[in-house]
Amino acid sequence: MKISHIEHLGIAVESIEKALPYFENVLGLECYAVEEVADQKVKTAFLKVGEVKLELLEPTSPDSAVAKFLEKGGRGIHHVAFAVEDGVANALAECESKEIRLIDKAPRPGAEKLQIAFLHPKSTCGILTELCEH
Amino acid sequence: MKISHIEHLGIAVESIEKALPYFENVLGLECYAVEEVADQKVKTAFLKVGEVKLELLEPTSPDSAVAKFLEKGGRGIHHVAFAVEDGVANALAECESKEIRLIDKAPRPGAEKLQIAFLHPKSTCGILTELCEH
Repeated sequence: MKISHIEHLGIAVESIEKALPYFENVLGLECYAVEEVADQKVKTAFLKVGEVKLELLEPTSPDSAVAKFLEKGGRGIHHVAFAVEDGVANALAECESKEIRLIDKAPRPGAEKLQIAFLHPKSTCGILTELCEH
Repeated sequence: MKISHIEHLGIAVESIEKALPYFENVLGLECYAVEEVADQKVKTAFLKVGEVKLELLEPTSPDSAVAKFLEKGGRGIHHVAFAVEDGVANALAECESKEIRLIDKAPRPGAEKLQIAFLHPKSTCGILTELCEH
């Protein structure tokens, strides 16, 4: 697998409106987009820090994965997304051949028109891991 | 505060030796340094992905903060470190004036000869946050 950079960090928040002042007024970052991702039942707000995006994730439904993460007491970093250069489908095939547990067997559409797929944290040192490509 | 980029992601692992094959053989990253940080009671292994370092943290003592994080069932991302351009001491003063709870009142030495300070996750949307500068 060829990873070029960290595409984004997914950060679970109960409310984007309440979280943004910290990222904007304390860290001095700028929110440049807000988007709803129906597939993942979240509203997202994007900020950029260097080459990495911070993606704030607010659940839009109690049955979204992010809502469940928050419900279990999870806070902060929800997942790490790596940009792969050789395609998500190829990367998934390689992961499977190396006995990494997949959440998604095939790429699916994510925010910002990315193709994405998740690896299971049981196989990735506890880090919910997203692979993505434009 | 002026943040240039994410300096590193701190990743808690029980064993660097057991964790490295995932990062090297699956993600295709390269470990370029291993260092012990006596102050934080951890052994660290560094890999680079784009402009961001991944810092694997293995506790060297049961009373290190990372050991306690693992003991409580924490896995994966332990903290996010931002590189500040205007000095950690200035950034801490700004945070304090904005009522952000500080773990460190003043910069102290970290790995790789950085000056570092931590902000408390209660004030940072649940993300244990490190500010650092070379």
